[in-house]
Amino acid sequence: MASAATAAESLQDVMKRRGLTENDMLAAAKTYHPTGKLDEFMVFSSGGQSGQVIVYGVPSMRILKYIGVFTPEPWQGYGYDDESKAVLKQGSEVQGRTVLWGDTHHPALSETNGESDGQWLFINDKNTPRIAVIDLRDFETKQIVQNPIVQSEHGGAFVSPNTDYVIEPAQYGAPLGGEFAPLEQFNEKYRGATTFWKFNREHGRIEPENSFSLELPPYSQDLSDFGKGPSDGWAFVNSFCTERYVGGIERGRPPFEAGCSAKDHDYLHVINWKKAAELVKAGKAKKINGHNVLSIDTAVKEGILVLVPEPKSPHGADVTPDGKYVTVSGKLDSHTTVYDIAKIEAAIAAKTFAGKDEYGIPIIALETVAHKQVALGLGPLHTQYDSKPCVAYTSLYVDSMVAKWDYCEGKVLDKISVHYNIGHLMAMEGDTAKPKGKYLIALNKLAIDRFAQVGPLHPQNHQLIDISGDKMQLLYDMPLPLGEPHYAVAIATEKLKTNVRYPFGTDSRTEKKSPFAVRPGQERIEKKPGKVEVFGTVIRSHITPEIIEANEGDEITVHLTNLERAQDETHGFAISKHNGNLSIEPGKTASLTVKANKAGVYPYYCTEFCSALHLEMEGYLLVQPANYKATGAKAKEGQVYGQKDYDTRVKANNDTQAVINSVVGYITSVNFKDFPQVVAMVEDATEQLGYAEQNKKKSEEFAAKGDFNSAFLWAEQWFQYQVKAADIGLRAKTFLEQNGAKKVEAAK
Amino acid sequence: MASAATAAESLQDVMKRRGLTENDMLAAAKTYHPTGKLDEFMVFSSGGQSGQVIVYGVPSMRILKYIGVFTPEPWQGYGYDDESKAVLKQGSEVQGRTVLWGDTHHPALSETNGESDGQWLFINDKNTPRIAVIDLRDFETKQIVQNPIVQSEHGGAFVSPNTDYVIEPAQYGAPLGGEFAPLEQFNEKYRGATTFWKFNREHGRIEPENSFSLELPPYSQDLSDFGKGPSDGWAFVNSFCTERYVGGIERGRPPFEAGCSAKDHDYLHVINWKKAAELVKAGKAKKINGHNVLSIDTAVKEGILVLVPEPKSPHGADVTPDGKYVTVSGKLDSHTTVYDIAKIEAAIAAKTFAGKDEYGIPIIALETVAHKQVALGLGPLHTQYDSKPCVAYTSLYVDSMVAKWDYCEGKVLDKISVHYNIGHLMAMEGDTAKPKGKYLIALNKLAIDRFAQVGPLHPQNHQLIDISGDKMQLLYDMPLPLGEPHYAVAIATEKLKTNVRYPFGTDSRTEKKSPFAVRPGQERIEKKPGKVEVFGTVIRSHITPEIIEANEGDEITVHLTNLERAQDETHGFAISKHNGNLSIEPGKTASLTVKANKAGVYPYYCTEFCSALHLEMEGYLLVQPANYKATGAKAKEGQVYGQKDYDTRVKANNDTQAVINSVVGYITSVNFKDFPQVVAMVEDATEQLGYAEQNKKKSEEFAAKGDFNSAFLWAEQWFQYQVKAADIGLRAKTFLEQNGAKKVEAAK
Repeated sequence: MASAATAAESLQDVMKRRGLTENDMLAAAKTYHPTGKLDEFMVFSSGGQSGQVIVYGVPSMRILKYIGVFTPEPWQGYGYDDESKAVLKQGSEVQGRTVLWGDTHHPALSETNGESDGQWLFINDKNTPRIAVIDLRDFETKQIVQNPIVQSEHGGAFVSPNTDYVIEPAQYGAPLGGEFAPLEQFNEKYRGATTFWKFNREHGRIEPENSFSLELPPYSQDLSDFGKGPSDGWAFVNSFCTERYVGGIERGRPPFEAGCSAKDHDYLHVINWKKAAELVKAGKAKKINGHNVLSIDTAVKEGILVLVPEPKSPHGADVTPDGKYVTVSGKLDSHTTVYDIAKIEAAIAAKTFAGKDEYGIPIIALETVAHKQVALGLGPLHTQYDSKPCVAYTSLYVDSMVAKWDYCEGKVLDKISVHYNIGHLMAMEGDTAKPKGKYLIALNKLAIDRFAQVGPLHPQNHQLIDISGDKMQLLYDMPLPLGEPHYAVAIATEKLKTNVRYPFGTDSRTEKKSPFAVRPGQERIEKKPGKVEVFGTVIRSHITPEIIEANEGDEITVHLTNLERAQDETHGFAISKHNGNLSIEPGKTASLTVKANKAGVYPYYCTEFCSALHLEMEGYLLVQPANYKATGAKAKEGQVYGQKDYDTRVKANNDTQAVINSVVGYITSVNFKDFPQVVAMVEDATEQLGYAEQNKKKSEEFAAKGDFNSAFLWAEQWFQYQVKAADIGLRAKTFLEQNGAKKVEAAK
Repeated sequence: MASAATAAESLQDVMKRRGLTENDMLAAAKTYHPTGKLDEFMVFSSGGQSGQVIVYGVPSMRILKYIGVFTPEPWQGYGYDDESKAVLKQGSEVQGRTVLWGDTHHPALSETNGESDGQWLFINDKNTPRIAVIDLRDFETKQIVQNPIVQSEHGGAFVSPNTDYVIEPAQYGAPLGGEFAPLEQFNEKYRGATTFWKFNREHGRIEPENSFSLELPPYSQDLSDFGKGPSDGWAFVNSFCTERYVGGIERGRPPFEAGCSAKDHDYLHVINWKKAAELVKAGKAKKINGHNVLSIDTAVKEGILVLVPEPKSPHGADVTPDGKYVTVSGKLDSHTTVYDIAKIEAAIAAKTFAGKDEYGIPIIALETVAHKQVALGLGPLHTQYDSKPCVAYTSLYVDSMVAKWDYCEGKVLDKISVHYNIGHLMAMEGDTAKPKGKYLIALNKLAIDRFAQVGPLHPQNHQLIDISGDKMQLLYDMPLPLGEPHYAVAIATEKLKTNVRYPFGTDSRTEKKSPFAVRPGQERIEKKPGKVEVFGTVIRSHITPEIIEANEGDEITVHLTNLERAQDETHGFAISKHNGNLSIEPGKTASLTVKANKAGVYPYYCTEFCSALHLEMEGYLLVQPANYKATGAKAKEGQVYGQKDYDTRVKANNDTQAVINSVVGYITSVNFKDFPQVVAMVEDATEQLGYAEQNKKKSEEFAAKGDFNSAFLWAEQWFQYQVKAADIGLRAKTFLEQNGAKKVEAAK
């Protein structure tokens, strides 16, 4: 017996039991999402060394998706189906090696007039210099371009105000183009660079042939940003280890960390990228590995590159929303410097230079262009902007704090502790021309004691901070369960125009109609020597074909089109003991190629729990041994059915139909058309009932011929479609009842 | 200027603005975790087709970790370092193919006397029949064993009450051992099976040589459970498609789904596994692929296998906490059946059989052993148990509901809607001998409209339900961002004895001292023709060695030991443009082997943001072309320092030391020893100051010799250690200030 009635707890009871303060409840109220309430903002976070992108909602801080980018991920079929393998391969084949991971760093959302437009996402890989393009209609990676000249990068991706270029600066110096040179020639032969990738918005793809790079000194280039508004046309790239120190602790030399942080200043590189693009068009670039490169000499001669001292070891060059200033903090300095871009332009125009570096690049004195220098705290790192004018937020790594400050006046407004050792921070659309304010996220590198322990490898901790008021309020601690997120960007959810299904038979990676798509009834198997090619379909709850025969040694390719139109009705496909998994969302066509190198019996099945009959969504790949001769024997049915079974089944189906009719009666008696979700469910259920009707007819045809075994089995299939319709109908009915549907006048 | 002061919102304001009800606030209060508050329970969820395990906290529903199991995952280095590759390879090399993913289904926690003990986690792969063993001291996968006789499985892993065996039933029938046989011989040559893996608790590994299987008819075996208490020694395995129907829709036959759900009943297999183990010891097993298999004939003869009819297409055989009953629901039936295990035992003892199946297995009539049959709703699937006696919860797939019911009396107590199409459900320790009650999680297969849209592939939705009262209360919707979680298990967090560091130089996969570990100062590079082997270390913030020279074509292995003791001070390691990433937690030794197939300059670096000097934690792999002759030229320093630089640096360091001393003064002036986190930080800071002192001495030695360049650089390194100490010290100070540290009497 169940226990006696328990008095429900009051809010005060729960607060007391769980040790929550009034302030905690305020934070809870600001972040809690009851079922069905959607997040206001969506965050795209680097997945760090996982090589993926992490998507989460704000203010709930719930992770909504990991997107496969540089690392194969089987749930999505990414790197496990033929179509996505082609995308992954663009990035993974490196000098004869296969690189199946990435060290993702900085995601960037596409912009129109400096504002996030929600169309594309770009992300870089520090380890194998690459940029990936993700389409935000379906959250899938569509393209990866490898950097043809640098060996390492860090400070991309950031986009120009209309997304015509994506920037990717190098990091650790090396000879451009990948050639060998000894470290003794570091100053002479090692170089940095910044690549400007041309993005074609119409096709949604980067055009490597129209892209270019600018050769730079071997100052470890780091973060970057584009100018906007009045500073559109300029790009800013900061750097560390402009000492060009080469360590070697094992040889008795102080390590890199000592020599790379010795000077008080590093250099902010100021680049006129619009003029650079014109120079490339005018043929001023040389080619390295077929890629356009403007040399330092050309850049200096043409006046498109200057240096400005910046606080040492900075990690962020952040242009203000109005495009007037760029802010740089040095992790090993306690000052943040605000540069006046108009003053930089004026100094360049007037050639007001304080000197030049060893490579001949003009240097502008800090005092010529500094607007403010503000002591924010220890280990300042990265800055983001509020919707409120002049308000900025800077992460303080050593202090484990966020500073809120006024970059116009140069004064600190507030500080808040974070847990622990914050790297980047990120405000809602906080690096665009129109920041949205409201929330700030601290991307903390250490969590230590914040979460229940999961072994020596800890999650990171993203902390949500309310910035709507004068004082910052810590709202929520979010563990990151996979990958060290380096940087993130956020966008208002309403700006995203996301699809829930594909047009029939889409290859989602090319975003075109797949040549392998087939309509139901047109499924076929083509055999050639050594090759079996299947053109099939999937639907609740069967795969067509259900039996595939092959010979040992054959290569087998299975193309499957998902016939569903219903939202979230994804089917999967995998063959036992073979490598590969398809995620086939409604409308998609995906392909799996395997080598049948060993004779045997290999069940295949749907890998997404799609319906009550999901486990029965199965088939067999039969790989016959060499020289196998079929016996020609006929299979014995495991179970044979007669007229009585058929009659019983038909009666049960008719009873089921009566239940379905009553559900349909309820749905049509209320204002279901006011609920778009329910309208979609009704369409789906109607489709299932259509299939039920077709199978009912088949069943009746066999019964008329006296083949009651077949008649019974088709009646079973008719019933299965009824179950699917009932499933959806009941879901719709419950939704309507719980969401206040109202009776309507019966039509006619 | 910042905006004028904004009045802070009250709780009522926030509720109104966000449309939250009083009930929502109650749910928020029950789930919200302010910073530092730890979760009461920890959930280990299948990662579905991601091939991983998902770990999350309850009641916060925050995902704490993804654990790499069957699929490589670079953040953890899993499948990207040499040590874990050896584990992965145990499972991935299949008949000459490499299978780098898994379709994980049912995780199981180790038990002692039927209660979860928090020591190990087991998980299966449906696609390539395998079981993985995860050690919960560090949440790492330690072993994968491949099933040697079945082609497909589903219903594992579940453990016997003292974890001496782990069960793994087959799913889709196929000839045992992997041989080919045509589908025409389905009844004669295709078979099911259930494997019992022997687990050695002392070594924490499965012993394949002491494991065995039981041959079963080709009834698609499904879920399973072990008896406990009075039913210890029995195992229960359910099934579907006992019709043994073979589809072929492309050949005009009704699909599998029609023929596999035609009969009203499938079979619950009841197995005396203790007697089976004795029979194997007595030599009654035959060998298939070297594995012990008891035939159906032997099982029947020895009386260790009977069948009992069960409702059709069931998906769960769940033994009650007291071990008296086993509950089975059929997805295509509206009844859930409670079997009395004592009656099953009595029927077997008395041979009260109603007949036998085509394979000669005795069948017990349902009415002989049924305790109750309860109509719970449509699509009942899986049952879990409450801490309250007789209370069970069953998922209803078609109804999209959870039913709370009394399995003693056979009556429904409450129902709640979930969103949508629930598969498994899971209560806290709800499948053990001592369920903890409190919370239930609905593992819903569809999310549809519950979350902000992220493209056609939706997350799943785990919903948290409060079961502490008489009425169930829905608390929280949690999206699953990666993989379709099939089943999950939960344990009280306090039961986990998790490590935050490894003993010095541990190979975490063998859990033994690594032969490649070296102490600081003992780092070395060994070269043989074609091979470079590095024995190095990592510490904030340098890698030793910093320069590795190799020849084109060499194989390079880098072994690195993390010298840190501080919690969460993980370092990473990767070489540009090469495949592989190490995650080296404190104390761990990990290895990366790459082929240097192309001459060039490849920076390497730490891939975990470990300190303010993280970016400077770098080095160079120099791959020399064939026939390369070193010039012998000496490198020109990028920057040369003199006595003035040295003096300035020393003064700054002394100033920094004064700041550190003041922080130390504060910390020791309060009761810091009452805060274990702070004690750990103080130890870490002390260690850093020790390093600072060593480098100070080096610096002074060079200064004494008049080598001010070296003296300056070592003084820089001295400063870097000061920065690390200051970083930790400030974190400790802030923590103490914010957590109410109190002044103490000065000692002495």
